[in-house]
Amino acid sequence: MNPICELFGIRYPIVQGGMVWCSGWRLAAAVSNAGGLGLLGAGSMHPDTLREHLRKLKSATSAPFGVNLPLMYPQMEELLQILVEEEVKIVFTSAGSPKKWTEWLHSHGMKVAHVVSSSTFARKATEAGVDAVVAEGFEAGGHNGREETTTLCLVPAVRKATHLPLLAAGGIATGAAWYATQALGADGVQIGSRFALTQESSAAEAFKMRCLQLAEGDTRLLLKRLSPTRLVANAFRTQVEEAEERGASVEELRELLGRGRAKKGIFEGNLDEGELEIGQAAALLQGRPIEPVAEVMAELLEEYRHTARQMADNIL
Amino acid sequence: MNPICELFGIRYPIVQGGMVWCSGWRLAAAVSNAGGLGLLGAGSMHPDTLREHLRKLKSATSAPFGVNLPLMYPQMEELLQILVEEEVKIVFTSAGSPKKWTEWLHSHGMKVAHVVSSSTFARKATEAGVDAVVAEGFEAGGHNGREETTTLCLVPAVRKATHLPLLAAGGIATGAAWYATQALGADGVQIGSRFALTQESSAAEAFKMRCLQLAEGDTRLLLKRLSPTRLVANAFRTQVEEAEERGASVEELRELLGRGRAKKGIFEGNLDEGELEIGQAAALLQGRPIEPVAEVMAELLEEYRHTARQMADNIL
Repeated sequence: MNPICELFGIRYPIVQGGMVWCSGWRLAAAVSNAGGLGLLGAGSMHPDTLREHLRKLKSATSAPFGVNLPLMYPQMEELLQILVEEEVKIVFTSAGSPKKWTEWLHSHGMKVAHVVSSSTFARKATEAGVDAVVAEGFEAGGHNGREETTTLCLVPAVRKATHLPLLAAGGIATGAAWYATQALGADGVQIGSRFALTQESSAAEAFKMRCLQLAEGDTRLLLKRLSPTRLVANAFRTQVEEAEERGASVEELRELLGRGRAKKGIFEGNLDEGELEIGQAAALLQGRPIEPVAEVMAELLEEYRHTARQMADNIL
Repeated sequence: MNPICELFGIRYPIVQGGMVWCSGWRLAAAVSNAGGLGLLGAGSMHPDTLREHLRKLKSATSAPFGVNLPLMYPQMEELLQILVEEEVKIVFTSAGSPKKWTEWLHSHGMKVAHVVSSSTFARKATEAGVDAVVAEGFEAGGHNGREETTTLCLVPAVRKATHLPLLAAGGIATGAAWYATQALGADGVQIGSRFALTQESSAAEAFKMRCLQLAEGDTRLLLKRLSPTRLVANAFRTQVEEAEERGASVEELRELLGRGRAKKGIFEGNLDEGELEIGQAAALLQGRPIEPVAEVMAELLEEYRHTARQMADNIL
C-alpha cells in the first residue's frame, strides 16, 4: 500500500496544500471527499475562525482531513488548544522548527507532517519524530526556502535523507508532474496552486481568473531579505522590485509590505495593491476555467494513469 | 523509435552539454563512443582550437557528435567556416536568436538544435526551422534564462509549444531524473554537470573535486543584471553577492567579473578567484569519485531501467 495513503487513511496520495486565504473548509472538504487529504490553512485564520472552519469541515466530510500550522503563528497556544478540542488528527507544520511541538502534537493523538526546503531540514524533522515530510521546491507559490533548490533536485535529496513517507511539492499541477515526482522517490504530492484556483477555494474570483491567465515568468521569487516569497507581477510587486533593485533595507521592505497584503490580493481580489501568491505551475493552467475540485481530482488521476501507460511503452 | 535517437543517429537519447572549459574532444568522444551524443563547447575555444579539437574528435570516434555554438560568439564567420570545412553535421545553438543562422547551417548539411528557457523561445526556434529544442530549466549550471522557470514546469510548457524532438536539461544527473523528464514529455536529455565532473572533462581536477563536495544551496543564480549565471559559493562569488546587495551598477559588476573568470575557475582550478559554474544537481553527486564517462553512461541507463521497473509497480 502507498505509505502516504496508509499513514493518513486516504485513497489517493494527494494532499491539498494549506494555503493562506484559499484553504477554508469548503476546499478541504471537497478534496477529502474526493479521496485526497484536505487541509485548512490556519496561517490566515484567527483562532475563532479556525474553530468555525473545523466545525463546518467536520460536518461536510467524514473522510480524514488536516490543518496546516505555520510554527510562527502568533497565538500558538490558543490554536493548539482548539486543535485538541476539535479532535484534529493530522497537522502539517511549516515555517519553523518541528522540534518544539511534534511530541506534544503526538501526545494529543495527532499525526505530524513537516514541510522542508532542504535535506538538512528533512533530517532535523526526522530526528524531531515527525511522521512524514513534504519536500517543497523553488517553483512553489508563496513562502519559499532560501536555498532555491528546485523540486527536481530536492525530492531525490530528501528521499536520501529520510526513510519517512515523502510528499513532493512545488510545480505539481498535473498528473504527469505527479508521476514524475513519484519516479524521483516521492510517495505522494502536496498540490497548492491547482487547488487554490478551484471553485471551492476561498480566494477571490478575480485572483483565480488572474492566475489562470499567467504566462511563464509571470511569478518571481522576491522579498529574499525578509522571507522569500513567490509573487505574481502587479503594481505592488513592481514597487518591491524597485525597492530591492536600489538595495532597500529590511525595514523599508517591511514598511512597503505593510499588513494584510496577502489578504488584500488573494481574498479581496485587489489585483494591483494586493500580494498575489501562486506557484510557477499556474502557467501550465493558462486559459483553463475555474474548475470544481472533483473534476481536478479526476483529471489528476486520469493524467497520472495516462502517463504511466505511455511510460510503459518507453523502454530503452 | 525515439525521435532524438532517430534525428541524430545515436543509440541513447542522452546529449552531453557543450560546456565552456569542460567539453573538449576527449569528453565528446567518450560520450559519443558510449552511445550518446558528445558536443564540443565552442564557447570557450578560439577558432583554431575548435579546428584542432574537431580533428582529434573525428579520429577518436566514428559515432555522431556535435558542436555547441553560442550565437554571440565574437568570431562567428570564422567559426562557421571551420564547421563547414570539418564537415560538422550537428550544431546546438544557444544564447541568441536561431533565426539568423539556422537556414545557413541547414544549407551546409547540418542538423540544428536550439537551447531555450521558455516556451516563447521554443515557438520562435520552431518558426526559425530548427530540428530539435533543448528546454533548460533554472537549476542548470552556468548561463541561465531570465524567467527562472524550473525544469519541472518548463518541459511540459515547451512540449505544448512545439512538435519538435525535445531534450530536457537542468537538474538531470541521474537516470531517475532522466525518466522523470521523459514522463513530462521530453524525448531525451541534455546532461551537463554530471559529464563536467567525469575523468574525460577538460575541467581542472580541483574544480571537479570541489563540485563533487557541494551540498544543496551551494550554487546560486547571480549576475542577473548582466546575464544570469549559476555560481558555486567561493570568495569571488561573495564579492559578487556583496556588490549586488548594495545595488552595484552593470558597469561595476562587469568590472568585477573582468575577463577570463570562468577559465580561471573551471580550467585552471583557481577555486577562490575563479568563476565556478555547475548545476544544482551537483549536490546529488556529493561524495562520488571522478568517474569515467563509460561508467556514468552505464549508471544512467541502469538507473533509468530501475526507475521504470519500480514505476511499473506503482499503479493507482
